[in-house]
Amino acid sequence: MKTIAVIDGGTRPNGNTAILTNQVIEGLSVEKILLRDHTIYPIIDMRHALEGFQNRNDDYNTIIDQVLAHDILIFSTPIYWYSMSGLMKNFVDRWSQSLRDANYPNFKAKMAEKKAYVIAVGGDTPYVKGLPMIQQFQHIFDFMGVEFGGYILGGGNKPGDILQDKNALFAAAQLKNDLK
Amino acid sequence: MKTIAVIDGGTRPNGNTAILTNQVIEGLSVEKILLRDHTIYPIIDMRHALEGFQNRNDDYNTIIDQVLAHDILIFSTPIYWYSMSGLMKNFVDRWSQSLRDANYPNFKAKMAEKKAYVIAVGGDTPYVKGLPMIQQFQHIFDFMGVEFGGYILGGGNKPGDILQDKNALFAAAQLKNDLK
Amino acid sequence: MKTIAVIDGGTRPNGNTAILTNQVIEGLSVEKILLRDHTIYPIIDMRHALEGFQNRNDDYNTIIDQVLAHDILIFSTPIYWYSMSGLMKNFVDRWSQSLRDANYPNFKAKMAEKKAYVIAVGGDTPYVKGLPMIQQFQHIFDFMGVEFGGYILGGGNKPGDILQDKNALFAAAQLKNDLK
Amino acid sequence: MKTIAVIDGGTRPNGNTAILTNQVIEGLSVEKILLRDHTIYPIIDMRHALEGFQNRNDDYNTIIDQVLAHDILIFSTPIYWYSMSGLMKNFVDRWSQSLRDANYPNFKAKMAEKKAYVIAVGGDTPYVKGLPMIQQFQHIFDFMGVEFGGYILGGGNKPGDILQDKNALFAAAQLKNDLK
Repeated sequence: MKTIAVIDGGTRPNGNTAILTNQVIEGLSVEKILLRDHTIYPIIDMRHALEGFQNRNDDYNTIIDQVLAHDILIFSTPIYWYSMSGLMKNFVDRWSQSLRDANYPNFKAKMAEKKAYVIAVGGDTPYVKGLPMIQQFQHIFDFMGVEFGGYILGGGNKPGDILQDKNALFAAAQLKNDLK
Repeated sequence: MKTIAVIDGGTRPNGNTAILTNQVIEGLSVEKILLRDHTIYPIIDMRHALEGFQNRNDDYNTIIDQVLAHDILIFSTPIYWYSMSGLMKNFVDRWSQSLRDANYPNFKAKMAEKKAYVIAVGGDTPYVKGLPMIQQFQHIFDFMGVEFGGYILGGGNKPGDILQDKNALFAAAQLKNDLK
Repeated sequence: MKTIAVIDGGTRPNGNTAILTNQVIEGLSVEKILLRDHTIYPIIDMRHALEGFQNRNDDYNTIIDQVLAHDILIFSTPIYWYSMSGLMKNFVDRWSQSLRDANYPNFKAKMAEKKAYVIAVGGDTPYVKGLPMIQQFQHIFDFMGVEFGGYILGGGNKPGDILQDKNALFAAAQLKNDLK
Repeated sequence: MKTIAVIDGGTRPNGNTAILTNQVIEGLSVEKILLRDHTIYPIIDMRHALEGFQNRNDDYNTIIDQVLAHDILIFSTPIYWYSMSGLMKNFVDRWSQSLRDANYPNFKAKMAEKKAYVIAVGGDTPYVKGLPMIQQFQHIFDFMGVEFGGYILGGGNKPGDILQDKNALFAAAQLKNDLK
């Protein structure tokens, strides 16, 4: 059976994005990875340094191990300034390190077996202004060979707003069904 | 006379993006802000918490003070995973805090007086796959009322590659001329 | 009461886009404009010619009169090559003529009172590859001052495929409700 | 030696796009295809009709024959409403017919051997608002397997304006050099 990891880039509990994501995963067996509860340093680009990338002594590799253990990845992020949160961006940036990490010789190949979804909620017309973010994810997944299963964009500003976004809720219920 | 700040989101010295940016600012009086030399924590969204945003005791406000002191902002970032570096994204994310910070009552109004440029170099067909990032910056600047003066996308992977990108170098020379 | 016009850019009857659009407008009073049943010549750019734009003796102005008579515009188009059909594009292109037509002195002002929706179905991952089209519509509506009410992207290739796209059907039902 | 075809979607002689394109091709041996001098009917989608696509008795196939005879294709179009002209869109739409035309059994395979460039000039911040059009061309070329060699976006409204766009002119000179 396919297993699911949620990579949660939110910065507060019970945010609108988390609520929407919970609609998808409620009742499913899921490993939730709350990036905010971990330390992930920004990448330092050492691709061209003789010594190469150095171990950063943070939680990044632990999280990658969790991610690699699953078949389905749900990137759940509030839309901050028209893209994923900086918290999540720092996590993705570090993939460049894993791609060159001798301890993860099959990082790309393993990622390429996965299917990914994006769930994101924003307050400023996300259905239109969130599209560059979706295109960024498309390029990210294309590069890694990850199948882009789909996305749900929702609207909301104040806590709980997302529960008024009927299209997003319906799409969440559909996705839940697909993931069962 | 208009003054210029470069907000540098690169993570290594003399990266291709920095080289291209230097082509623009060489000989001009510029304040360079190297984000990698500062600590900027990811935002914690406290918009809806009673206590509101809390002082994070990092370098963010110092940098904002520098930014606010200038008329022209150059966002100089390597393209990491089809967007600005996580380092720069964390900086921009924190603007949400400044927008609600009683110590910066005119943050948005002051930003709206500025003109911004983006300089970004990437290795994976940046002229096409970097476009969602440009659209993201457009939305960011539109939201803040900042005038989007233009952008230069350059191509490069290995150190110094950018010096082969003649279109980018020419555009840099043109921009230098405009900024004089 | 607000009245609705559907501007149908499809090129065959009962196409997937038309089926999806019918889910929205069924039971509502709507004026359907089938562009394929009219002759609309491509624009000839005469903005800079002394004599200006010339009457093209086609059906364009008749259609514009119909469009102007309504409050809500639904642009219903199959996704051809990642954007609206050429049929619809020729219609939109001609707006440049109306903007300079002494017989339509308030063309832009009248359009700016309207609210527009886009309904589009495509066969090649429309949820991702249809996004540049949505961004084009966004720019079009922004230019004209038209409010962009929202859009529905659906997936389908063979006739009737759209009836399997539950998210699109739900969004259509929601939009129908909003338009009542 | 590689041969070049320019597919010109402009609707007036000596438009800004044509001027910019001429900077690229001046002195090179090029076949210019002025779409405005030909009749190309909008596609009628007959993919699902028993009888299939019908010969439209227009100039489309003649143009396709010209296009297929060359290695390098330059799509030269003014930016109308944030995309290619309807004239050019109708031409591209008809590719769906060629893809199913028994007289062109290798249409896709032959197109996939080509390299394409886009040259486009617009009046409303083309460097930003023209980007969805570039993304659309990217999807078009990706679908056909055509290599996307690059693009030049220029700014201009009044006749000759493009001659003030130094970046576009430089990029044109560079492209000319590459095509020699």
